[in-house]
Amino acid sequence: MRVQSPFRTQKDSVAEKSGPVTAAIIMAPAKKNILERLDAGEVVIGDGGFVFALEKRGYVKAGPWTPEAAAEHPEAVRQLHREFLRAGSNVMQTFTFYASDDKLENRGNTQRFTGQQINEAACDLAKEVANEGDALVAGGVSQTPSYLSCKSENDVKAIFKKQIDVFVQKNVDFLIAEYFEHVEEAEWAVQVLKTTGKPVAATLCIGPEGDLNGVGPGDCAVRLVKAGAQIVGINCHFDPDTCVKTVKMMKEGVEKAGLKAHYMTQPLAYHTPDCNRQGFIDLPEFPFSLEPRILSRWDMQKYAREAYNAGVRFIGGCCGFEPYHIRALAEELAPERGFLPAGSEKHGTWGSGLEMHTKPWVRARARRDYWEKLNPASGRPYCPSMSIPDGWGVTKGHADLMQQKEATSKDQLKALFDKASQGH
Amino acid sequence: MRVQSPFRTQKDSVAEKSGPVTAAIIMAPAKKNILERLDAGEVVIGDGGFVFALEKRGYVKAGPWTPEAAAEHPEAVRQLHREFLRAGSNVMQTFTFYASDDKLENRGNTQRFTGQQINEAACDLAKEVANEGDALVAGGVSQTPSYLSCKSENDVKAIFKKQIDVFVQKNVDFLIAEYFEHVEEAEWAVQVLKTTGKPVAATLCIGPEGDLNGVGPGDCAVRLVKAGAQIVGINCHFDPDTCVKTVKMMKEGVEKAGLKAHYMTQPLAYHTPDCNRQGFIDLPEFPFSLEPRILSRWDMQKYAREAYNAGVRFIGGCCGFEPYHIRALAEELAPERGFLPAGSEKHGTWGSGLEMHTKPWVRARARRDYWEKLNPASGRPYCPSMSIPDGWGVTKGHADLMQQKEATSKDQLKALFDKASQGH
Amino acid sequence: MRVQSPFRTQKDSVAEKSGPVTAAIIMAPAKKNILERLDAGEVVIGDGGFVFALEKRGYVKAGPWTPEAAAEHPEAVRQLHREFLRAGSNVMQTFTFYASDDKLENRGNTQRFTGQQINEAACDLAKEVANEGDALVAGGVSQTPSYLSCKSENDVKAIFKKQIDVFVQKNVDFLIAEYFEHVEEAEWAVQVLKTTGKPVAATLCIGPEGDLNGVGPGDCAVRLVKAGAQIVGINCHFDPDTCVKTVKMMKEGVEKAGLKAHYMTQPLAYHTPDCNRQGFIDLPEFPFSLEPRILSRWDMQKYAREAYNAGVRFIGGCCGFEPYHIRALAEELAPERGFLPAGSEKHGTWGSGLEMHTKPWVRARARRDYWEKLNPASGRPYCPSMSIPDGWGVTKGHADLMQQKEATSKDQLKALFDKASQGH
Amino acid sequence: MRVQSPFRTQKDSVAEKSGPVTAAIIMAPAKKNILERLDAGEVVIGDGGFVFALEKRGYVKAGPWTPEAAAEHPEAVRQLHREFLRAGSNVMQTFTFYASDDKLENRGNTQRFTGQQINEAACDLAKEVANEGDALVAGGVSQTPSYLSCKSENDVKAIFKKQIDVFVQKNVDFLIAEYFEHVEEAEWAVQVLKTTGKPVAATLCIGPEGDLNGVGPGDCAVRLVKAGAQIVGINCHFDPDTCVKTVKMMKEGVEKAGLKAHYMTQPLAYHTPDCNRQGFIDLPEFPFSLEPRILSRWDMQKYAREAYNAGVRFIGGCCGFEPYHIRALAEELAPERGFLPAGSEKHGTWGSGLEMHTKPWVRARARRDYWEKLNPASGRPYCPSMSIPDGWGVTKGHADLMQQKEATSKDQLKALFDKASQGH
Repeated sequence: MRVQSPFRTQKDSVAEKSGPVTAAIIMAPAKKNILERLDAGEVVIGDGGFVFALEKRGYVKAGPWTPEAAAEHPEAVRQLHREFLRAGSNVMQTFTFYASDDKLENRGNTQRFTGQQINEAACDLAKEVANEGDALVAGGVSQTPSYLSCKSENDVKAIFKKQIDVFVQKNVDFLIAEYFEHVEEAEWAVQVLKTTGKPVAATLCIGPEGDLNGVGPGDCAVRLVKAGAQIVGINCHFDPDTCVKTVKMMKEGVEKAGLKAHYMTQPLAYHTPDCNRQGFIDLPEFPFSLEPRILSRWDMQKYAREAYNAGVRFIGGCCGFEPYHIRALAEELAPERGFLPAGSEKHGTWGSGLEMHTKPWVRARARRDYWEKLNPASGRPYCPSMSIPDGWGVTKGHADLMQQKEATSKDQLKALFDKASQGH
Repeated sequence: MRVQSPFRTQKDSVAEKSGPVTAAIIMAPAKKNILERLDAGEVVIGDGGFVFALEKRGYVKAGPWTPEAAAEHPEAVRQLHREFLRAGSNVMQTFTFYASDDKLENRGNTQRFTGQQINEAACDLAKEVANEGDALVAGGVSQTPSYLSCKSENDVKAIFKKQIDVFVQKNVDFLIAEYFEHVEEAEWAVQVLKTTGKPVAATLCIGPEGDLNGVGPGDCAVRLVKAGAQIVGINCHFDPDTCVKTVKMMKEGVEKAGLKAHYMTQPLAYHTPDCNRQGFIDLPEFPFSLEPRILSRWDMQKYAREAYNAGVRFIGGCCGFEPYHIRALAEELAPERGFLPAGSEKHGTWGSGLEMHTKPWVRARARRDYWEKLNPASGRPYCPSMSIPDGWGVTKGHADLMQQKEATSKDQLKALFDKASQGH
Repeated sequence: MRVQSPFRTQKDSVAEKSGPVTAAIIMAPAKKNILERLDAGEVVIGDGGFVFALEKRGYVKAGPWTPEAAAEHPEAVRQLHREFLRAGSNVMQTFTFYASDDKLENRGNTQRFTGQQINEAACDLAKEVANEGDALVAGGVSQTPSYLSCKSENDVKAIFKKQIDVFVQKNVDFLIAEYFEHVEEAEWAVQVLKTTGKPVAATLCIGPEGDLNGVGPGDCAVRLVKAGAQIVGINCHFDPDTCVKTVKMMKEGVEKAGLKAHYMTQPLAYHTPDCNRQGFIDLPEFPFSLEPRILSRWDMQKYAREAYNAGVRFIGGCCGFEPYHIRALAEELAPERGFLPAGSEKHGTWGSGLEMHTKPWVRARARRDYWEKLNPASGRPYCPSMSIPDGWGVTKGHADLMQQKEATSKDQLKALFDKASQGH
Repeated sequence: MRVQSPFRTQKDSVAEKSGPVTAAIIMAPAKKNILERLDAGEVVIGDGGFVFALEKRGYVKAGPWTPEAAAEHPEAVRQLHREFLRAGSNVMQTFTFYASDDKLENRGNTQRFTGQQINEAACDLAKEVANEGDALVAGGVSQTPSYLSCKSENDVKAIFKKQIDVFVQKNVDFLIAEYFEHVEEAEWAVQVLKTTGKPVAATLCIGPEGDLNGVGPGDCAVRLVKAGAQIVGINCHFDPDTCVKTVKMMKEGVEKAGLKAHYMTQPLAYHTPDCNRQGFIDLPEFPFSLEPRILSRWDMQKYAREAYNAGVRFIGGCCGFEPYHIRALAEELAPERGFLPAGSEKHGTWGSGLEMHTKPWVRARARRDYWEKLNPASGRPYCPSMSIPDGWGVTKGHADLMQQKEATSKDQLKALFDKASQGH
């Protein structure tokens, strides 16, 4: 199979010092937009979650989870975009997760960067790399502390509006409202995003039990479509199995309502069979001991196939995804798409690269059959297979969830520790 | 605790376009060399393994495992160096693993890059990033297919000589002979490295059972010291527990022989309690389903402490290490060293960053006690905790191990598959 | 708490040779019948499954699972009855599982014993031991190969009738139709049992997915009550968690239909979180490698409490139950019942007997808190936590399920092995 | 293969009421003694541990672990003997474990039965059942609280002497000193046992690390042989793998010393890969949550084969063994012995009885290949595979180990709980 170079220009090589590449970029033909692709039945490969990937690389702080790195360490963000592009991503999402001013203020951002600075820098980086290949730029907004703290619809919408203004000015290709636990807030976001005239996708971070107010996946999807989203689906909080299952329920709901939509999934790269409604946040391992749950590339090929079979055509990832996970999606669907991603030059499909390994018994693993059947060991005999999730059964409006600008105080922490130890 | 900026110059920021930084580099004082540091009792933090990290990012092919990316995709290699520097590494190893011509020819390298090109490019990248901070550059050589195929001592030494010539010309700070399964070949390497007059470190990829010819860790260490290595230890093939245990045996051997050395460990970031002599290569999960075995940052802090207590002062990592793993080593030993790495600006020690998390029950996890006691679940109830290693009990000299330039043929593969399935 | 002696006469002691105990038996007051007990809100403790317990003791053959031991090895059967009585059982079920003539013929019984002989011997044994305490005798019938082979309603009912005739002649206290996978066959059984005028209980071996024809638990229960059963519930095939969940669905169904019934559960003593509709039969471990799934006494106390809280008042066990499991049920519900079983003289509640252990760190385990929180290890690091069930998706009427008298032939077995290996 | 009836007389059948069987017993030829059998190279199958088996049946109290049931509930003890005989045991051990007066006083025995009463009753029961087949009676003594509390050699030997007097009077066939953690005490026991002129076997409950004073298995064995034991080996505390490994070390020691002995193993029926020196006592699961560790019959066949291959010819079991486990030993070694045990009439070798199962996919499991390869699941996804043992590193002479007659007081318990919780 042909390996497609998604790179229109060769930027990164021993030749990098040798000259200007601008010409090539100027001559590139216009790209098909997201709806044209999906309407034509193409598979669109998304990217992976930047927050977790950059936390491991040292550029994002777990806890606040804010994206100031777009302005602070652009090189690191650019490189990650490039790796996802090379792995096969057709969409570069701006690294603007939690980049609303209420969040940046609220969670200990050092104030060196305003929301506007971060959003602008993130757009520039996504655009720069997207233009090195055939990818589109998607501007993203996500749930706000303002909603959780019961601010008004107008207040919350104003938050979204501020981010959108940057996306419009930077002329991104389309917009994604993602990572919403309450469909109501997602609707508000979609309504704001629609004012731009750009295509709008909306994904909730919910499972089969529905959103945190108990609205089922089918109903959620109908409300998002009615609010104006052309693409709906699920991102984050659950593993691929659960996300595909949930998006099927969304699809059923939309079809039963006589509506139409495209579907997308951007799940975790962590196995979460033991999660309840609130997903991996509630797992005791979140966020610093999730390693044993990381999906393999073979798990990812299974996910790509199942999502495809469920009618999903925008297939990407969220927290935990590394570039090789995205490449696995592109490799699994290469027969349907007709080409492999550029990154496959460094990967033999189904382990065939092992044919060149030194040890003969490792060469004997160079086959699909071997990897598909393997049940990998954890090397952790003192650890269990599943955990009982935490979670205090509270949602928007509960006093425990009111957000504050200040870091949690010592007294507040002590109260939390006590509450937690009683819960176990 | 003070966060030390290992960066002498601020290269990577929104300010990056705004001006030259060369002046700062010129003025930097001379760095202490590796032996001065170790003799002074300093802790030297190593970096992580590039082959596995770049395989996941899409720049290295599993199977051949060759480092042509140094020449082919320098941006990706540079960025990984920079992440390790930021995480606290004091050593930038040149990305020259398996960069000997016999290996590059033997394993399907496309011949666009010669060994010399790769070695030169790797030195330049390591040096560039090392000079952004207080790190040293180490030129590295590793075991050769020539030795496995029973070439003469002269032939094997000539292979090492070719790489060394580049390291001398590029004036690296010191040299590492690493990843040797047979102490005899490592001795040969050390003898060649010694001719340069630079400090020499040597690490074997063996466990407590000794090298593949059955020479115990203590005897191996004595032979390496006698050959001229000032620093000896273990890298790759086993988890931290096993590597620290093995290096203790080395230390005992050296001390019993009345010799002196510094010690280093650069283990896997995978749990391998079920490995036998040949280490993780023999695990059924190698190399594509090792995910459930990945160590957490807390596992790494335990490793750093145990290595330190065992008298190891050059503490780094190998395959599986990501920048956050290296940062964990630097954070654990911050009390001894007096400073935190730059990357800790994005990491609250022992999870304290979670104090700023949205959900109160996640804030309750912001404490050492919580993470130290947690036994993380795999989310894989259909998988076991341990595996029975493969491995056909053959080593250097066995027909099965003769290396060939060509990729394994269909017939050869069929014979391997049959042999493997009988073995199970 | 008072330890009640359920033994009206002291039969088994060093005094056993010393004299007649008949007098005591003669003077025993009439026992309350099963419905009087349940109507009064009493907790009735059932016994455990004889087939599995006696298989481990060497008196039942796995495969045929027939109860000829009642006639062939009465001593072994009597002893097991006595152990359950001592453990707290209020019901002695006749050991007549699969004691219908069509089953005895069909599955390799050596023909030394007729169905009538076995049924009679089983009644005598149950009665003898029941009269040593305050227990009732329940005559039991179970599903037939005739039904599976599509024999007529009349034929199947005739099978039940033959067993019932013995129960009437031996004057058992009440009747149980148990272990039915199809509610239709259970209804037929209940209809036959009702003709005796004795109280009738009926339990299906189904889970929340319903019977093998897809009839849900609620509907099943309604049909059984309408057929005349005064007590309905679940036995075998699933663990306590699943059985309690299923019987709750039955109760909801019965109540929604405006009917009334008593409820019973007699689950497995094996954990089965991974089962699908057909229960533990389909687990790869069935029947010879179920050991790692065996419930502890603490699991049993949890079960007793949950069954009680769900409104179940006839609480017993099935396959895998040993006497100490039954004792755990009686101990958990001792506060409600006001007394402990006789067997508790050899058991300190919640491990308190360990106060007399030699090692002090074992004495430190003499507390409820310790045992309730413990997640016991399997000592099997090469084994998984869950299995994927077999099961070919066939039920009554399918050619694969036609029963034959002869043992499976070599050719038939080969066909089965091939079919099985394709399935995996 | 012929099924041997070990029963000289048919005691247990529907015919049991019909007549005297004494004649047959009188005519039975003299049995070969234990040394004649072993010298002739015969395999001798031992029995299983009575304490754990009868605890589950309700006749032994965990904590004190004393055998008053021999006198108190003879029927239960007799039945268990009979089941082991039927399963293939050639040795009926008297149920006299911990039946020394210092233990009976020390651990809350209600004083209804003296040591002498219990020892006598136990001999009678073992003899009665042994005479129903071809089994020998072995009188057993085990370690004493007196030794642990530092009583003198004379005092400890006097304890053994009291039990031996009963064994001589009852004329048992041979003697076993078993379950010793300190070889010194075992030597004392052997010296007392030798005074009877009967064959003497001695087993320690130790692993490869040696006894609690650090004497290695080889040295222990040499000392026991020198003290006069003709048979030496290991019982209890560890799983079969560990016990076979340890007895191999014993054999090496004895042979290196130029001595001769027969060897025996009577391991646990629990997997204990995670144990340290003190064995399963220290596992957190001991004694009430060991269920997931129970060996299957297939594990037992593997044990029998490995013990046989290691040169062990007296092969039996200890805590956790049920009759079907003993039968598995006899079935595995049937080719060597030329016959199957009586109990095999109810067991198809390697699952062949499943050929008569109702469900075709269960019939497909009627083969050795299936059961040998199966890695059985625990059904416990929230539980680990291995545990970290307790154990406070104390042994004989330490204040914590001084034994007292009284049950541990509330204050003593509180101190223990505190000490234990600090330890975790």
